[in-house]
Amino acid sequence: MEHKQLTELLEQMTLEEKIAQMLQLVVTFFEGSEEDGQITGPMKSLGITAETVNQVGSVLGLSGAAKVIQVQQTHLKNDRLGIPMIFMADIIHGYKTIFPIPLAIGCSWDLDLAEQSAAVAAKEAAVSGLHVTFAPMVDLVRDPRWGRVMESTGEDTYLNSIFARAFVRGFQGEDLKNDVNRVAACVKHFAAYGAGEGGREYNTVDLSERRLREYYLPAYKAALDEGCELVMTSFNTVHGSPATGNRALMRDLLRTEWEFDGVIISDWGAVIELIAHGVAEDEGEAAYLAVQAGIDVEMMTSCYVKHLPELIRSGKVDECLINEAVLRILNLKNKLGLFENPLRGADPEAEREVVYCDEHRAISRELASKSCVLLKNTGVLPLQAELKIALIGPFAQSTDILGPWSWIGAGCNVTPLNQAIQEKISASNVVLAEGSGIDTITDVQIQEAIKVAYQSDVIVLALGESTHMSGEGGSRADITLPAAQLKLITHLKTLDKPMVAILFNGRPLDLHGVHDQVDAVLEAWFPGGEGASAITDILYGEVNPSGRLSMSFPHAVGQIPVYYNHYNTGRPKKESEPDNRYASQYLDIPNEPLFPFGYGLSYTEFEYGEIELSAKVMKPEQPLQVTVTVTNTGKMTGEEVVQLYIRDITGEVVRPMKELKAFIKIMLQPGECREVSFILTEEQLRYHHSDLSFSSDDGEFVVFVGANSRDVVERRFRLIK
Amino acid sequence: MEHKQLTELLEQMTLEEKIAQMLQLVVTFFEGSEEDGQITGPMKSLGITAETVNQVGSVLGLSGAAKVIQVQQTHLKNDRLGIPMIFMADIIHGYKTIFPIPLAIGCSWDLDLAEQSAAVAAKEAAVSGLHVTFAPMVDLVRDPRWGRVMESTGEDTYLNSIFARAFVRGFQGEDLKNDVNRVAACVKHFAAYGAGEGGREYNTVDLSERRLREYYLPAYKAALDEGCELVMTSFNTVHGSPATGNRALMRDLLRTEWEFDGVIISDWGAVIELIAHGVAEDEGEAAYLAVQAGIDVEMMTSCYVKHLPELIRSGKVDECLINEAVLRILNLKNKLGLFENPLRGADPEAEREVVYCDEHRAISRELASKSCVLLKNTGVLPLQAELKIALIGPFAQSTDILGPWSWIGAGCNVTPLNQAIQEKISASNVVLAEGSGIDTITDVQIQEAIKVAYQSDVIVLALGESTHMSGEGGSRADITLPAAQLKLITHLKTLDKPMVAILFNGRPLDLHGVHDQVDAVLEAWFPGGEGASAITDILYGEVNPSGRLSMSFPHAVGQIPVYYNHYNTGRPKKESEPDNRYASQYLDIPNEPLFPFGYGLSYTEFEYGEIELSAKVMKPEQPLQVTVTVTNTGKMTGEEVVQLYIRDITGEVVRPMKELKAFIKIMLQPGECREVSFILTEEQLRYHHSDLSFSSDDGEFVVFVGANSRDVVERRFRLIK
Repeated sequence: MEHKQLTELLEQMTLEEKIAQMLQLVVTFFEGSEEDGQITGPMKSLGITAETVNQVGSVLGLSGAAKVIQVQQTHLKNDRLGIPMIFMADIIHGYKTIFPIPLAIGCSWDLDLAEQSAAVAAKEAAVSGLHVTFAPMVDLVRDPRWGRVMESTGEDTYLNSIFARAFVRGFQGEDLKNDVNRVAACVKHFAAYGAGEGGREYNTVDLSERRLREYYLPAYKAALDEGCELVMTSFNTVHGSPATGNRALMRDLLRTEWEFDGVIISDWGAVIELIAHGVAEDEGEAAYLAVQAGIDVEMMTSCYVKHLPELIRSGKVDECLINEAVLRILNLKNKLGLFENPLRGADPEAEREVVYCDEHRAISRELASKSCVLLKNTGVLPLQAELKIALIGPFAQSTDILGPWSWIGAGCNVTPLNQAIQEKISASNVVLAEGSGIDTITDVQIQEAIKVAYQSDVIVLALGESTHMSGEGGSRADITLPAAQLKLITHLKTLDKPMVAILFNGRPLDLHGVHDQVDAVLEAWFPGGEGASAITDILYGEVNPSGRLSMSFPHAVGQIPVYYNHYNTGRPKKESEPDNRYASQYLDIPNEPLFPFGYGLSYTEFEYGEIELSAKVMKPEQPLQVTVTVTNTGKMTGEEVVQLYIRDITGEVVRPMKELKAFIKIMLQPGECREVSFILTEEQLRYHHSDLSFSSDDGEFVVFVGANSRDVVERRFRLIK
Repeated sequence: MEHKQLTELLEQMTLEEKIAQMLQLVVTFFEGSEEDGQITGPMKSLGITAETVNQVGSVLGLSGAAKVIQVQQTHLKNDRLGIPMIFMADIIHGYKTIFPIPLAIGCSWDLDLAEQSAAVAAKEAAVSGLHVTFAPMVDLVRDPRWGRVMESTGEDTYLNSIFARAFVRGFQGEDLKNDVNRVAACVKHFAAYGAGEGGREYNTVDLSERRLREYYLPAYKAALDEGCELVMTSFNTVHGSPATGNRALMRDLLRTEWEFDGVIISDWGAVIELIAHGVAEDEGEAAYLAVQAGIDVEMMTSCYVKHLPELIRSGKVDECLINEAVLRILNLKNKLGLFENPLRGADPEAEREVVYCDEHRAISRELASKSCVLLKNTGVLPLQAELKIALIGPFAQSTDILGPWSWIGAGCNVTPLNQAIQEKISASNVVLAEGSGIDTITDVQIQEAIKVAYQSDVIVLALGESTHMSGEGGSRADITLPAAQLKLITHLKTLDKPMVAILFNGRPLDLHGVHDQVDAVLEAWFPGGEGASAITDILYGEVNPSGRLSMSFPHAVGQIPVYYNHYNTGRPKKESEPDNRYASQYLDIPNEPLFPFGYGLSYTEFEYGEIELSAKVMKPEQPLQVTVTVTNTGKMTGEEVVQLYIRDITGEVVRPMKELKAFIKIMLQPGECREVSFILTEEQLRYHHSDLSFSSDDGEFVVFVGANSRDVVERRFRLIK
């Protein structure tokens, strides 16, 4: 459709039809409609009529080509103007082919595979009838108590931003209208959902405008710069106003300053929640605040439908706001090609061929193998196939390794770790024991585990958190492994055999009781449907691990927040003054995390030479070339993530001790060395000043290159403009 | 002196003399001057000359009448213009008569005694030659990991504000010039030092401007409204700029908006620390930023002395700024009467009479007995004198109960708890054992403790943190009692005897392993020099405990921050929906602290009737009378802190679930009931809106009255303007 036709369509719509476009209902409203064309569902609880359901703009959570086709066709019959619905859902890390959780994908530092994972998810979703996914989630996270860190790519602004772009490219492709194997992306949660106090789900967010802009906003902006079609509001407050009713955030910043003209959708129930937040007295005021803020679609509550008509008739809300919102929704439908092709990609036959196909699973396996992070290895890994291993622990035989947000994937036959290993090596070389449950352990389990371990050469522990311990609503105040599993380790430790821990979990954990007891720790996260095979590849040395943490592992929960790009403070702790009480520190633990951002081991070793700079002075028109030679000094081919950080020694405001600005992944043969070069520009040295202006300052900088945010070589240069 | 004379004096001063006024040096620079009139000290490390020391404006940490007189007289001989020095020091909770730590004083909710404690401290300090104390510290605190919470009165804006006023009144009296038994107060640390990330000392602070104004700033403002003469800068950043170089905070807000014209002093070394913070390239830039921000006195570094002359000569700094600063310093000297009376209160004879006198110690004892908070009591307390008690634990015989910031007091003969108890009851009824050290325990100690406990009727445990575990530089990531003491409890628990725990500590602790093991818990904090007697009075029922927490005790360190005046969020946890995963909560602990703000038990019980309101509607010209009947339903005379909170149901921004607005302390005989009335005004309903304007809104409010922030009766009313 041409734009003109969209406005003509808008003109034909009644006020009620317009407002119905701004409502999104969940799948249950349409169940049963397959049989008799009748729309059912819990309309009563929302106080809406069948007519509204007939005119509704979009549907949440309905997928499967046949179902979608049926519901869309029924809708088109019922809707006076025949405006197709959009079908949206949470396709977070795969549709049915489940990839590692996003936090794990963040640890891959592999943008190409991340993009491929999104493209695969889009394709499977699109042939199953979906048009929009509520992803990527690009919230910056610094608090591992929060369960939803699993859905983020981590603590770094730059890494989140480039992953945001990769995911958007993967979901949307280049031409949403004609490439029906893609879906529109919805970046979320705008803004700063990751900064909830105490890591408690949905909790208050408070930060300065400068911190918001410097750390939290860039990844959302990056997604939009990549063409992301939708934005979802966050549940939290920003500067005292819930995002969904926050006019300064949504209209002034997102719409006006950033010129975003796509659809803004509330998170589930977030409009009506303005009442609980205490900024709206009732549903009418909630509707008023949300529409004034520029929220186009209300998800799953009916404040708009019930109250906008009266608000407009009384003159409290200008109908212009409604027209703008509906036009944006119609525009999205048009971009998706729904007016010409209301069924779009929905295709039962393609669905059978494409969804969960071998090709997709292979990509998932590759991404899983790149996402695992080897945190410790005294040399016990990789394992020799001829060793007899005792595979013990609640994840040894578990299929609960997909992680949260894998609803469709849950229906698959996930290979558990024991099966993947038994497929790889002689079955007689694997003995199994439960060892413990996730958070229960019995004497019988302990005895059996000891007995089995006693027969083995190496103990391989498969430990972690169950799916429900992270994800939305999964905040934990204690982030150690459950006591039962720590007890299992303690008992097995008495055997004095080599121990390997493989961890399945959704957040950085306090690993005391694990890393200090075992000989190797492989952080596998929730690795997705092919995770067990990927882990097995690593365990037996077919894949050399290359994952690098995208979020710090704290020393203890009492150290939170701990993140690499912090400021120096006025009294930084100095190694040269270990006994100085008056330094910024704790009495009982170090300032440093247990494992820093960017950290991860390989089966080989990499050595970094000194940094060579193309000049001592950078000028805007003369970027700096930063070169370092990296050598594989070990005995195995391996992939290294060469990371570049900068520090602005003196700023107009305080500046981070390190900021990731670039990285390059290289594969080196044993003994091979390679010159790795980065181009560093004045643009990369810009930051937000106290007046929020974004620019660089003349002065001294440090450039660091290294294997992680801690272990680096460094060199100084000056910027002169 | 008249103002005119001060400006004339200023005109006579050389630039170097002016700048020397802006320097504060520590006592060591003046040691040895008693003997030969020579000024010594580590001048070299500061790069300053003897001439500068001769002209310096103020001295830190020197006290004792004879010494001060000698140093001042020598100075007056050496200083060309004969400008007296100001003697300043950290007199935080008493000079030699040490009172409970301020956090404990906060728990007394007793403004009169707080004022008296400051007046006593002022008198002892003044006769010992001091003119200024670096108190009160009014930083709002929400993070018990921070060691310096001990120096604050807690987590509530209102309570901190009224304590700030009481302390300022106590220190300064009504006429600083003529009442030489007073000292000038210096409110600190401006601003928001209490909000350091992770509770780590000196760490970065980041908060929104609205939060800063709503929660953090009012207590500083209250101190200034009470006439507080000085302000000390904080070490931390505010909106990305360290406070000491933060022009927006210091000049725009404090000087211009609040019209503060007193002296602003840096905290120790905070000017030179602008370099470490990364906002100044060198000492010259540090001096530039600090003087531009309006910092009059540089404490213990020499950026001003070394660099202001050149900065002025080169025109980078306007000499006006120096003149203004020096005039403020001279003005303070004049207000203290130093030009007429440079020795002021310093009086060796009065010093011998006044310091640590019985009258002062009696006030300390009374305040200590009001500051203890009874957290648990199954009925074991009060103790009968005829019972045989086993007094066990590292604080049973310890004199380390003064707490941080008690340098002069440390020279006193502090009565330990065992001695105070033995003075009260028959010595044969007290048996003693170490039990453990603070963080060590041996089998011998355990066996001895069990043996002693076995002979007793009741076990009284004296447990806690050593002084150095809190205070400045005393951040802890783990806030439980040290493991050794928890182990001691576990062993004694096996005897199945009544156990009472008395806690000596500087912060709210995670009391798991204590409160769930014993029959009574008395939080004594660091109670000051008379603490042991005060505790004994409570233990044996001569004093009925009346302290109420001014800071929440968290359930676990992983719950931090937890504070009573939080917002509701959009998804508050509801008792009616215990299994709803999608509520703001942790999976593993409750949302509520272990002991809430305002909480504390008595040996008697109080019952609250329903709230009576004088009207259902409040108008600006018609305040509301809120009346509730409180009855002592127990068997002992007791003091209750009747607390009034409000909640604004709907605001233009989110509003706290409860806000303390008033309280009344009442003493009731057994069976006595009293009508307690509060007047609630429209002014008390005002808050900072999103545009930072301060006003109230029409709408519904809740008023709560109760014994603490959790246990309340409530009533609704409307504000109509």
